[in-house]
Parts: sequence; structure tokens; C-alpha cells
Amino acid sequence: MPDRSRQKRMAEGFLALHRAPALVILPNAWDVASAKLFELEGFEAIGTTSAGIAATLGHADGQRMSLDENMEVVRRIVLNTALPVSADVEAGYAPTVEGVARTAAAVVDAGAAGLNLEDGTGDPRAPLLDRSQQVERIAAIRETIASMGTSLVINARTDVFLTGEGLAGGLRHAIERGNAYREAGADCIFVPDTGDLDKSAIAILVEEIDAPVNIIAGATTPSIPELQDLGVARVSLGPRPMRAVLSLLRKIARELMTAGTYRLMTDASITYSEVNGWFSGDRSGGE
Amino acid sequence: MPDRSRQKRMAEGFLALHRAPALVILPNAWDVASAKLFELEGFEAIGTTSAGIAATLGHADGQRMSLDENMEVVRRIVLNTALPVSADVEAGYAPTVEGVARTAAAVVDAGAAGLNLEDGTGDPRAPLLDRSQQVERIAAIRETIASMGTSLVINARTDVFLTGEGLAGGLRHAIERGNAYREAGADCIFVPDTGDLDKSAIAILVEEIDAPVNIIAGATTPSIPELQDLGVARVSLGPRPMRAVLSLLRKIARELMTAGTYRLMTDASITYSEVNGWFSGDRSGGE
Repeated sequence: MPDRSRQKRMAEGFLALHRAPALVILPNAWDVASAKLFELEGFEAIGTTSAGIAATLGHADGQRMSLDENMEVVRRIVLNTALPVSADVEAGYAPTVEGVARTAAAVVDAGAAGLNLEDGTGDPRAPLLDRSQQVERIAAIRETIASMGTSLVINARTDVFLTGEGLAGGLRHAIERGNAYREAGADCIFVPDTGDLDKSAIAILVEEIDAPVNIIAGATTPSIPELQDLGVARVSLGPRPMRAVLSLLRKIARELMTAGTYRLMTDASITYSEVNGWFSGDRSGGE
Repeated sequence: MPDRSRQKRMAEGFLALHRAPALVILPNAWDVASAKLFELEGFEAIGTTSAGIAATLGHADGQRMSLDENMEVVRRIVLNTALPVSADVEAGYAPTVEGVARTAAAVVDAGAAGLNLEDGTGDPRAPLLDRSQQVERIAAIRETIASMGTSLVINARTDVFLTGEGLAGGLRHAIERGNAYREAGADCIFVPDTGDLDKSAIAILVEEIDAPVNIIAGATTPSIPELQDLGVARVSLGPRPMRAVLSLLRKIARELMTAGTYRLMTDASITYSEVNGWFSGDRSGGE
């Protein structure tokens, strides 16, 4: 039986973070260990990365894993941390309004405080859902959450910059979609990019979108203090932390396979006892 | 329906690696992504780390996770790699011979090629199972595997050096237990240490134990070429690679929380497309 009152309280607290003067950083976890580490480092909320969760389970990104597989990981993260958790549910695991409404209900049942819903389709011939369809889907989620008597932060993601649109057209398009998604009930508008957005582009998004704006941090993204000054409400990391740790793992593997030594592997500041200490309470029902 | 013939073939191939002149390195994975990375780097077999799997699921090490939770991860790794997988089943998730026999059958059903079984109890007043009890448990596993008409590499671990025994007594004790476990049907004897074993101690273990010997690699362990020269058959890493990547993740988190920059996070050689490419075949039944 899910603890709905805790879920609702978490969602309300999480929404308040979007309206506070300080920007909220959402590091994206892919399992309980990564989530727990982020909690212990003092973050106020945690996101998940669908690409990361999918890789841990043996799936490519892009709705290859099932909603159930995704929610099982989200539920474990919720059970093992005291922070609001925003669940990345890709494009909602269904094209229809009924389908995404069921997905939103599953996110609430998993105890998450928010969800990410993207408008990218993964289909190169029609890379974005029709705006009107996505508006209906967001409205259906809003209605489902209300009918459940709870709250959930809807982070509506528009993938215009992931589909190769140029900067000027992309900005216009992102603003148009962002405001439509806001009207439909989204709490925050997420505009991921792959290096397109400089300070002035971000300033335009913040100015023109009538909602808190979520930016993803990458190699060329302005720093956290700069994003704060630009009025960005929320920064997330996507699968980048997971890719960074996989890259270290590859270096460890190559050192083993070539020199046959263990320098990178044993240069670890975290001890065995420390990791075990994270879970001494063991709230996950293991034996 | 598990593919028993593939499992049997994998186990037989894995056993042959222990008898080959070249030492076999088993990097220990904790999810499909880490296992897949090790496979792509050219290792011949993969181990799992119970401590690592437990942490990803929100449990402390030491049989806090259930056998089912452990086997679900093992099954996913088996499905998504083409290498023999040795499952770390801690102390067998049961004290009795019937219990460990059921555990061994579950390992076969998960498709693994081998298992690790330890004689540590986690109880400081009696840190090791009686030798005779562990001998009976190993014999029961051997019998179960034979009755299933298949093979499975039994890596019998003795925890004498993890319970504070000194070097001379520990060596004598490890040799005594190792040979008893070998008599009972173990294929390989695993003597983990936390820095106790130098070259001469390892040479004694290899000389005196009448079975392939598994050493764990740590900061002060002789290099792979040195272990090869000493006659070690198998080297594993335990949870150390996972702790190393968690340590990098902590550095990434601290850079974000202090400087507000993304240098460590974006210094990744592995791309989004590359990780997705690992799973393009997607053999895990996702949608």
C-alpha cells in the first residue's frame, strides 16, 4: 500500500523548490547507490535518468524498458532516500492520453514527487509529437493527479533542440511549446540541448516562458552561479554522471588488461564500510 | 524456461579457463551496464559483487538482499553478455545443506556458469562456519548440480583473513580449509585478504592448496603478471571497481555543489550513442 500522504507532501515541497529564489540542482540517479550518494552530498531533490536506468537493466534508451521496470527502480530510490524524486518517464510509455494518465498514476504509486514527460518521438520522420497532442496528454496527467487527491510536479520537456532545429527557430519553437505546456498544467518547462544554449539564449527562454525553466548541464553550459543569475529555476544532468563513471570503469578495465595494475581501481575515497553504512537501516524489505 | 544447454556449455568453458596456463581475470559487475563494459573490454568471464548489487538495490552487504533479488540481476547480466558469469551468492542465503542446494539450483536457473560460496558468518562471536558444515554444504551443491545434469564452477571462499587471523595461522587455516573444500567438490579456492598476502604468502597458498587459487586484487596485491608467475589461476576485484566509480561520482557531486561546474562530469570518453549501441539487440524483453 503506497504511502500517499508522504508522496503528496514530497510533491508539494518539491514544487516549492521551483518557486524559491535559489535554483534547484537535480542530479540524475540510476540506482539506489547513486541516489543515496547524491542525498548524502546535500542535494535537495533527485532526478532519475531513463537512459541510465535502461543501461543498468540491459536496454537501450528510448522506451525500450517497460514502465514497470522503470518504476521498480524509482520505488527503491524513494524508499531509500528522504528527498523528493522526479521520475524520468520518457514520452510516457504510451502515445494516448489514457496511456500517459496511467503512467502518471504509476509514478504517484511509486512515491515520486514529479515526472519528466518529453515530446520527442524517436521517429526521425516526425521527431516531435503534435503540440496539441502533447497539450492533451499533459492536461490528462494534471487531471489524473487531481482525481487522485495528490500533487505531482510535471516537468514538460520539449525536444526541439534535440531534433536539429537551429537556434533562432528552436528558441521560438521552445517558447511556443513551453507556454502551451504550461497552460495545459505543466509546473516546469525543460529545454534540453546539446550545447546550443549560451547565456543569451537561456535568458530569452527564462524571459519568454511563463514558468520555471529547467536547463541541462553540459560541457559548454554556463556554471550554476551563472544559471542562477539568469533566472533558471532548475538544472539537471541527464545521463552524464553515469557516462562519466562508466568512462572511469573503462579506464580501470584497460589498466588491468594492459599494465595489470590496480591504481585507478584502488584510488577510491569511499570505503566498504561507508557504503554499507548508507543502508544499515535497510528499509527495502531484504532479509 | 532457462536454456540449460547454454548454461552447461558456459560452465564447462569457464572451468577450462581455470585449468589453462593463463590466469583468468574476473572483473566484478553489479548491473548490466558494468558487465557489458567488461565484456567489450575483452575479459573472458565476469563475476558479480554481492556488495555492489546490494548497494544498487538499497541494501547493506551480508545477505540483506534476497536470493531472488540477486538472481534477477545475475539473469539480466547473463542475458545481455556472451561470457560465463560467476554469481556471488555470499554464504548461500541459508545455513543448511538443503538451503544452499536450492541456492545453487537457482544460480543454474539464472544461467550462471559458477558461484562463489563463502564460509564467513558475519557473526563476530563465530565468524566462520564449522569446516565440516561448509564441507557438507559444498558437497550438497556438487550433488545438486550433478543431479540437474549440468556443470557449475564452485569457487569456495574461505574468509580466514577477513576475520583477523594473523598471517602464519591464517595461511595454515586457509590451506586446511581450501583442501577440505576441494575434497568436497570445489573447483577453485578463493582466499580474499585486505592486504595480508604478499608474494611469498601467495606462493605458499598456490603450492599447498591442491586446486586453482583465486586472489582478490587490492592496493598492495602483486600485479597481474606477478600473480601469473606465482601460479595464481584466477583474480577477482570484489566491490572495488564499484567503490571507485562511486568515489568519482562523489567528486562530481562536490564540484557541482561548490564551484558549480561540470568538468569531472563531462570528462567522459563514452558517448550516449555508444552506451545505447551496447543494447541495440535488446535481448531483455523490454518494449
